[in-house]
Amino acid sequence: MENFRFHNTTEIIFGRNTESYAGQEVKKYSNKILLHYGGDTIKKIGLYDRIKESLKEHQITFFELGGVQPNPVLKKIYEGIKICRTEKIGFILAVGGGSVIDSAKAIALGVDCEGDVWDYFMAKSTPSNAIPLGVVLTIPAAGSESSVVTVITNEKTKMKKGFHSHLLLPKFAILNPELTFTVSPFQTACGSADMMAHIMERYFTPTIKADLTDRLCEGALKSIIANTPIVLENPNDYDARAELLWAGTIAHNGILGTGRIEDWASHKLGHELSAVYQVGHGQSLAVIFPAWMKYVLRKNVKKFAQFAFRVWDVDPFFGTEEEIALRGIARMQSFFRSIGLAVSLEELGINSEKFEEMAEKELQWGPIGNLMKLNKKDIVEIFKIALKNEI
Amino acid sequence: MENFRFHNTTEIIFGRNTESYAGQEVKKYSNKILLHYGGDTIKKIGLYDRIKESLKEHQITFFELGGVQPNPVLKKIYEGIKICRTEKIGFILAVGGGSVIDSAKAIALGVDCEGDVWDYFMAKSTPSNAIPLGVVLTIPAAGSESSVVTVITNEKTKMKKGFHSHLLLPKFAILNPELTFTVSPFQTACGSADMMAHIMERYFTPTIKADLTDRLCEGALKSIIANTPIVLENPNDYDARAELLWAGTIAHNGILGTGRIEDWASHKLGHELSAVYQVGHGQSLAVIFPAWMKYVLRKNVKKFAQFAFRVWDVDPFFGTEEEIALRGIARMQSFFRSIGLAVSLEELGINSEKFEEMAEKELQWGPIGNLMKLNKKDIVEIFKIALKNEI
Repeated sequence: MENFRFHNTTEIIFGRNTESYAGQEVKKYSNKILLHYGGDTIKKIGLYDRIKESLKEHQITFFELGGVQPNPVLKKIYEGIKICRTEKIGFILAVGGGSVIDSAKAIALGVDCEGDVWDYFMAKSTPSNAIPLGVVLTIPAAGSESSVVTVITNEKTKMKKGFHSHLLLPKFAILNPELTFTVSPFQTACGSADMMAHIMERYFTPTIKADLTDRLCEGALKSIIANTPIVLENPNDYDARAELLWAGTIAHNGILGTGRIEDWASHKLGHELSAVYQVGHGQSLAVIFPAWMKYVLRKNVKKFAQFAFRVWDVDPFFGTEEEIALRGIARMQSFFRSIGLAVSLEELGINSEKFEEMAEKELQWGPIGNLMKLNKKDIVEIFKIALKNEI
Repeated sequence: MENFRFHNTTEIIFGRNTESYAGQEVKKYSNKILLHYGGDTIKKIGLYDRIKESLKEHQITFFELGGVQPNPVLKKIYEGIKICRTEKIGFILAVGGGSVIDSAKAIALGVDCEGDVWDYFMAKSTPSNAIPLGVVLTIPAAGSESSVVTVITNEKTKMKKGFHSHLLLPKFAILNPELTFTVSPFQTACGSADMMAHIMERYFTPTIKADLTDRLCEGALKSIIANTPIVLENPNDYDARAELLWAGTIAHNGILGTGRIEDWASHKLGHELSAVYQVGHGQSLAVIFPAWMKYVLRKNVKKFAQFAFRVWDVDPFFGTEEEIALRGIARMQSFFRSIGLAVSLEELGINSEKFEEMAEKELQWGPIGNLMKLNKKDIVEIFKIALKNEI
């Protein structure tokens, strides 16, 4: 096990009607806030009105900035920073999914930033402050509600980049499974793929001995695999929605990565597909992760066989360790297909044209990944496997 | 899943040599502290000197109070409160296992308490403040290093009682697996039984649907079961010690109980054995928990069968659900025996003489437990099963 620090201070407020606590929780930090959200869904489901009511009840003045799109972009963030500065806002309440939260985090970083907030993402400077933020989550997937990360797309340079800092941990996250009943089947499936990827980026580690967190990862994966089809069949199943919602947070709050070196190459390759081809994040991972696995599995074939056995119930004496490992990957791909996701680049209408360009863009800070350090040749090979990604 | 709040703010600092951070971490809170510990072990292993050095390096003045015994008692706590008040101490550093930490928590509660700190345990009054504390852990078991609980024995009334409050969450917990190398085989086994019990008190819930946390509980149990024999065979196995150390924290930091009603009847019955017969806490649980299981299993036989299948690898078609459940309990008892624990009251030299007295003492606040509400008759029956506790 590796040395580590773990300190996740986000307060989770989970369950039915918990959005009614929004005003009370916000009040602990500020009387003047930015209410940040995406499209009209939160209005359609009545959430917008309930939040406004809760804020008013606690005499909280709020300024609004809606319209955050999936793969949130800098333009909106600059807009938010401007409002926060002009109105001297002390808190951001993000109401939505990962994109809204990530956008809110970038705004929170930018308010006191003297230069361009994008410089933090480009590792040109380091923030010393961010204004506090809180979350009412409507789409379980990104885990951003209690993570130290934000991922933003610079729409001009077509770069999608993550930034990590404890300054970004939300003060609280309100999680009501009922708010996720209207998440579409495709979005639900993308969310499950994203959560699974968050767990697997930690699971496939170069750290040899990490038994407890291996088993916690496996348990969380099995729960997502068990509950996603239930939710697709009955979108209003409170308990199954609750399992996925809480799994999305656990997958990314840091606890499953304690004592382990993490990988994150698949996420980076997925980000390229999102930035260049506007592929949804979860969908990109359902294609890239299996391709990455097939390419790197010889780095630790026992671990991939363990994954096949413990997560996908592949018979441990079915064949060689490599055959067992491959069978596990195949079962994962079949699962992704069964929940309605594409499993190859071709299905997404993507050809090999930009493989080299994407690889080069991703490599400007050096090789990516940790289980295996990936260079240009490796990345292009992974994209090639992903083209057909045969099961 | 039940509605819940989860907010665990303890910073975990885990790994080799992490005790060298003690001074730096303490410094964030106070320059004048109480250094609280148990016996001479921390001196023998050189930890005491390293902590003192780290405190001196950061110009921290410390007053010492050692001599905490297993099942910590009020006398020592009053002593600690007096020192803290006289010396105007702003922080307590607990160096030791669960007993030292629990004692430190009770002192922290008592410093600003106008009446008797024991009144909090007797639910006669509620604290509004506690001075901050931190932990350097040397015995993995109690989970007190990042829990909201302290359990104290009133040596005069022979009552062992727990008290819960977020005021008790340590600010930080330093966990170095090397510091646990000298934990004796029996103490190691008791620790594993205690951790397992912390998980099982959450696992055997009346909440019907709690899939994710069920699976996380099962994973944590399997890791403890896998690593305890490794540690008993080779006490200096860093990685196996690390798994147990981190499992002890995860078992009791609250995350495994999220969304579930917990039970805690077995702990209460174990506390009676400790208070009346001075049985070590982990040892008491290895006797009481299987007896409790045998008595209550019909309340949710499917859950006990799931436990047998997923945790103890009992064949799911071995027999009726009840037979499967009983086989799981038998495997757990065999495991406890294999790691050197007694599995019956008779082995501990305890007879039926005080069963009724203990049951009555435990019931003064009403029935205990949640999967099944236990009254006097039930408790006496569980003690009776525990007498021989046949496997």
